[in-house]
Amino acid sequence: MERIYGSELGAYIGQKVKVAGWVHNLRKLGKVNFLTLRDVSGIVQVFLTKSEAAQLDNVLPESVIEVQGVVAAEAQAPGGYEIHQPEIKALSRVSEGLPFSINQPELKAHLDTFLDYAPFGLRYPQKKALFRLSAGVMQGFRNYLDQQGFTEIATPKLVESATESGANVFAVNYFGRPAYLAQSPQFYKQIMVGVFEKVYEVAPVFRAEPHATSRHLNEYISLDVEVGFINNHLDVMALLSHVIRGIFTHLRANYTPELEALEVEMPLIPDVFPHIYFPDAQEFIYQHHQEDCRGEPDLAPQHERWLGEWAKQEYQSDFLFVTGYPIEKRPFYTHPDPENPRYSNSFDLLFRGTELVTGGQRLHLYEDYQRALKKQGISDLQTFDGYLQAFRYGMPPHGGFAIGLERFLMQLTGASNLRETVLFPRDINRLSP
Amino acid sequence: MERIYGSELGAYIGQKVKVAGWVHNLRKLGKVNFLTLRDVSGIVQVFLTKSEAAQLDNVLPESVIEVQGVVAAEAQAPGGYEIHQPEIKALSRVSEGLPFSINQPELKAHLDTFLDYAPFGLRYPQKKALFRLSAGVMQGFRNYLDQQGFTEIATPKLVESATESGANVFAVNYFGRPAYLAQSPQFYKQIMVGVFEKVYEVAPVFRAEPHATSRHLNEYISLDVEVGFINNHLDVMALLSHVIRGIFTHLRANYTPELEALEVEMPLIPDVFPHIYFPDAQEFIYQHHQEDCRGEPDLAPQHERWLGEWAKQEYQSDFLFVTGYPIEKRPFYTHPDPENPRYSNSFDLLFRGTELVTGGQRLHLYEDYQRALKKQGISDLQTFDGYLQAFRYGMPPHGGFAIGLERFLMQLTGASNLRETVLFPRDINRLSP
Repeated sequence: MERIYGSELGAYIGQKVKVAGWVHNLRKLGKVNFLTLRDVSGIVQVFLTKSEAAQLDNVLPESVIEVQGVVAAEAQAPGGYEIHQPEIKALSRVSEGLPFSINQPELKAHLDTFLDYAPFGLRYPQKKALFRLSAGVMQGFRNYLDQQGFTEIATPKLVESATESGANVFAVNYFGRPAYLAQSPQFYKQIMVGVFEKVYEVAPVFRAEPHATSRHLNEYISLDVEVGFINNHLDVMALLSHVIRGIFTHLRANYTPELEALEVEMPLIPDVFPHIYFPDAQEFIYQHHQEDCRGEPDLAPQHERWLGEWAKQEYQSDFLFVTGYPIEKRPFYTHPDPENPRYSNSFDLLFRGTELVTGGQRLHLYEDYQRALKKQGISDLQTFDGYLQAFRYGMPPHGGFAIGLERFLMQLTGASNLRETVLFPRDINRLSP
Repeated sequence: MERIYGSELGAYIGQKVKVAGWVHNLRKLGKVNFLTLRDVSGIVQVFLTKSEAAQLDNVLPESVIEVQGVVAAEAQAPGGYEIHQPEIKALSRVSEGLPFSINQPELKAHLDTFLDYAPFGLRYPQKKALFRLSAGVMQGFRNYLDQQGFTEIATPKLVESATESGANVFAVNYFGRPAYLAQSPQFYKQIMVGVFEKVYEVAPVFRAEPHATSRHLNEYISLDVEVGFINNHLDVMALLSHVIRGIFTHLRANYTPELEALEVEMPLIPDVFPHIYFPDAQEFIYQHHQEDCRGEPDLAPQHERWLGEWAKQEYQSDFLFVTGYPIEKRPFYTHPDPENPRYSNSFDLLFRGTELVTGGQRLHLYEDYQRALKKQGISDLQTFDGYLQAFRYGMPPHGGFAIGLERFLMQLTGASNLRETVLFPRDINRLSP
């Protein structure tokens, strides 16, 4: 007999079927007994008489079983159907107690315990919903960009030299020579604008930041975009807002059960995302919150929260662009503001008052790169040879951005720790499972 | 004026438009002159009179320019249209000669030279077609599996211990402790079958194999699938054949220009892929090619070629499964053939007589893993703790496979070196660009 999924029971009332999955819960009440089975489609309820329940005598939760039985409508059961007269066959028996419960509405495990037992704990239905949603975000991102004629690229993660700075890179022994893990596909995605004009990549990036905070991961998924023939960073911002809207359109259309299971409060997304110029943002903070940060090179988290509140009140938007960060705080490839070169054609996108995306226009002329690298004290351009080659052979004005997948999920779902939004997190203390 | 793409000219006959791109070719004949421009959509021809051609005096090939002019129908031009009365503006000037030509039908650069100049060389139209096709393969793979209810996963590339064997892994300095780059997502995709039943991943894998052959890369993209609740490896083979068919359906529907540009000979894909049992394959080779490999633990490349020829003649198929490889040559997690435990429930898929995919049914019982690891001489199971956890807490019968993206492209397009099928290859001698 072919296995069917729990979600398909309604089509088989009165018929004998086979379902299979993990023993999620067992309620033995004596005369009436209920077994719930967890499969890819959700939860299936099985009704057992006292004698039928004897089949479960040595079957502990999380054992994998097959159940053949007759489908009956039952308003009280998940989905409205249950299975009667079950014949049970164990495919894989669990012989020990579980580290914590995953069949209760709430997960009562400390984060570290959860992560130690992630191969088991990820089976908890709300965790499954979260990582389905994570897949949905990647899908929505790719789908939108595919429709817009972007080309997906796969760039190397083993690189000869550190991308943006020598700090914070993991060293690899590459056949006896030093190599590094890519901190970002920045150089390669720019190079590929010279080939395809419009490119994106979804891939892991590696940051050797020795911090143990709730907002740091040492390996995460970066959703990277780079596009040529722009006028300036405003074109990149427009693209980013369309990408964000495309992701949410995709989630609404395909991931409603997951959004509901996670009680996600969907963000306010206006037709045009509001933006504020960096010095104006500092002036605003001074005027409205009596904190004088004017002239400082960056915004503090509290400043971003204030700006987020303002955008929500003033523009009914959970998103706010801050544009024109001081050039000194941005990477060397950042394009200056032609009107005021102390500032840059760059932006951050705040989501609910926290930075979610960084992006901007890049330099595109070879001479500008020579100058910018010299200013960083880099005179030996040999290490940047492959990168600079793209500019020597003609590059259009271009720009791009990178969205951190985990941070996006964290801010969307209200998770309190970034580790909760990645299957098997890597941090300064954790390399396993 | 808004830029349009070269492919859109037909909608603007007699109107003034703006196009932009790279100077692909210049033919200065005196009275009549032709400039071809390369943009994301292809090649645009610009017609220049002698006086108009003066605008190009200091513009070398690969410079990035904008051209405003009037669209005219011209049967001789690429796409059937060209631009007249051009006004040209340089966005980025090239000031040196090119390392080799990318505007001729044939690319005349030695592979090593090409790879040194990949940021430039990848602009060659047929290379663009190849890497568009590469993106199309990833898309087709994901689309098919998404439709079948699979969940995309992102698993860590920094791992605490070597996956399958201690050899051939890259060591990383992880905050002073040793870590390794994942050789495959094998353990994690199996773990995730315990969560989602059906999973896939598209991600880089890292192999520290110290070989410099035309068929080795040290970093490549692996298309990984794992699925639960199978009967045996035959279910995995059926899934794989559907995935292959799904990829080609997607390529035919969306990548015809690329397939034509690359003169790809599309493979013969029968409704059901033929398969042959490993010992029968050896007997076949003995009978038909008088080479006695019976009893050997593996097939040699020539054996695979003979089998591929046979499948093509006998079954009109470019694909052939070889099943039941000796268990001794397969990784420890391979499920034995219950009828004959010297052989395994594993398979290779040959594509045009060369191995393309390896897969099979895996062990799913915790006791079987303990036994299998012991047989490998591994008694300290601590390093496999996270992996084994999944089996201690109940796993269904399952299996899967991995397709190497680059190898797939190589065999599809007839490339002679695997390095040609990756944007920026990594091998024992090459870490850049």
